Amino acid sequence: MSKKICLTGVKPTGMPHLGNYIGAIKPAIEMANSGEYDSYYFIADYHSLIGVHDAKLLRNYIYEVAATWLAMGLDPKKVTLYKQSDVPEILELNWIVNCFTSKGLMNRAHAYKAMVQANEEEQRDKDAGVNMGLFSYPVLMACDIMILNADVVPVGADQLQHIEIARDIAHSFNSNYVPGYEKIRKNLDHEKNTKSLAEFIRTNDKTKDVAFLNPPKAIVAEGNKLLVGLDGRKMSKSYNNHIPLFSTEKELQKLINRITTDSSGPTEPKNPDDSLIFDFYQTFATKEQTEDLRARYLRGIGWGEAKADLLNVLNNTLKGPRDIYNELMADTKKIDAILEEGAQRVRPKSRELIRNIKNTIGVN
Amino acid sequence: MSKKICLTGVKPTGMPHLGNYIGAIKPAIEMANSGEYDSYYFIADYHSLIGVHDAKLLRNYIYEVAATWLAMGLDPKKVTLYKQSDVPEILELNWIVNCFTSKGLMNRAHAYKAMVQANEEEQRDKDAGVNMGLFSYPVLMACDIMILNADVVPVGADQLQHIEIARDIAHSFNSNYVPGYEKIRKNLDHEKNTKSLAEFIRTNDKTKDVAFLNPPKAIVAEGNKLLVGLDGRKMSKSYNNHIPLFSTEKELQKLINRITTDSSGPTEPKNPDDSLIFDFYQTFATKEQTEDLRARYLRGIGWGEAKADLLNVLNNTLKGPRDIYNELMADTKKIDAILEEGAQRVRPKSRELIRNIKNTIGVN
Repeated sequence: MSKKICLTGVKPTGMPHLGNYIGAIKPAIEMANSGEYDSYYFIADYHSLIGVHDAKLLRNYIYEVAATWLAMGLDPKKVTLYKQSDVPEILELNWIVNCFTSKGLMNRAHAYKAMVQANEEEQRDKDAGVNMGLFSYPVLMACDIMILNADVVPVGADQLQHIEIARDIAHSFNSNYVPGYEKIRKNLDHEKNTKSLAEFIRTNDKTKDVAFLNPPKAIVAEGNKLLVGLDGRKMSKSYNNHIPLFSTEKELQKLINRITTDSSGPTEPKNPDDSLIFDFYQTFATKEQTEDLRARYLRGIGWGEAKADLLNVLNNTLKGPRDIYNELMADTKKIDAILEEGAQRVRPKSRELIRNIKNTIGVN
Repeated sequence: MSKKICLTGVKPTGMPHLGNYIGAIKPAIEMANSGEYDSYYFIADYHSLIGVHDAKLLRNYIYEVAATWLAMGLDPKKVTLYKQSDVPEILELNWIVNCFTSKGLMNRAHAYKAMVQANEEEQRDKDAGVNMGLFSYPVLMACDIMILNADVVPVGADQLQHIEIARDIAHSFNSNYVPGYEKIRKNLDHEKNTKSLAEFIRTNDKTKDVAFLNPPKAIVAEGNKLLVGLDGRKMSKSYNNHIPLFSTEKELQKLINRITTDSSGPTEPKNPDDSLIFDFYQTFATKEQTEDLRARYLRGIGWGEAKADLLNVLNNTLKGPRDIYNELMADTKKIDAILEEGAQRVRPKSRELIRNIKNTIGVN
């Protein structure tokens, strides 16, 4: 039996910070490189277009996100890395499934509802500032997944609704064109048996002439570590408490110096479990290094020394990737070549799916 | 100076009737074959998909509409006839301009508003039965036009809003990417000078790196003849008072026999200006034939004779096209070949436009 297809999309919105790395990039790369799945990673540039209307900025964001993942260890030989806009079949599928997606699904999408609420609070028109991209992007997201017949999609809990919407759209399309689909679906415990459903459909004589959209399943990453920011709140660009992933050593030093400490003297004992510096340190240090610093906290350590240790361990972790990142960003042709190769791996699949879907709906 | 580009789209929804022919098809074919414009005709199959979820039906509708236009005299050597779904760049552009189309424009689109009103009258959810295709099709329509940089679009008065929406979308995109666009637009009387605007943009040094979407203009067909139906109301399938364009002679006879007449005898004089039969007759007969029948009406004519004359003139007009239509429908490979040739003429243009637009927004 072949491996399940796992798809991850990353929306390019600028250089990630350490919190993104610990919470999302690191576990994703570990999963991708593990070989457990047939893994696809794509740069969701057409999702960024909803809000980024500056060509230079968008182009740079795309390179930054590609360079980041490659620098942090994503292996494009093991994983197919591609750019959404290089797979135009996604946008063909997008229109086609629009015709099988009830508008009510979009009315209830979280991101749109939040916009409406914010507009209402400000007593603006409820759709002020909402473009059709923002309103309908969950359909595009469903197509990102379905174009590859992806089986699983790792998501945060806040993204679960998108997978539900994708499933709804797939079911709506399938039940229209695949005879007996609803009956099969109800008889199977489909949440657990997407694969059986797909296999049934594909081997069912009566349905061999029609294409099928695979309803994806979510993998909710549990216990992903959250990294706090320089001020103790959740690390976030909007709080300006973040450490950009590829800061120079000097920048790292400046940022670490911003961490506030108490006025205790350099020889007084300190509580490692109530120290932002220690928190950061243990995320990046080895177990031995962590134990050693813990002991020095308890014996008594100056904040300057602790900060120097943190800078050291952070810089040691990041300087290799930073060099790779800077190299890639200095010669983006290498990135182009990797993305181009990824697209070439994806397009035979996306072309075949669209050909079959167009045949199913009756336009070719 | 090259000819202006004129685009007409036809939504395949089944065999047209005589009223469609007189009101829309005939004037359109005359315009197309006149050579006044560089004319493009497309079969809007992706618009039909909004409501037609039966592959066999949709496929048949597509062939019917193509065969109809060809049978009635559209010359595929003078006019480019193609199928919307053969030009996937339309759907790429569709997503891209979604990101520059305010949702409010769609909220205010006539077809959607009519659906909402009907739902509210029936006390249903306002979006009951509305899919995302129905809600967003004016964006797709704008892309049908803009993908070819079409200059003019002949429309009925009820379609004017769609052209306005297309213009809004084009302006929204252009003003974001073309430096000085808003200023240029305001200084020119752009309603009259789309071409000047386009030329200015294209020759303006500062903007040579960005693509431009041509805001189309509507040509509202004036005085197009309306044909009444067999019962004297407007001819319409929904009234079941229509004459399908390619009815057999026998079917024509049956339909003509359904026209109610008064009880006046066969030798009594009759008023030609108050006769449905005469109305039909003069639409299809020559001037001489019409004058002759008028004289016979005034002298006294039997209804049976008048109906036989009508059958004769109708059948003479339609039997040639009917034979071509039936031949084409019996061998749809000829239609495929014509549509394929049309697509091959369109795609170099659509590919170039999308390449430029993608470069403008920053994704390639």
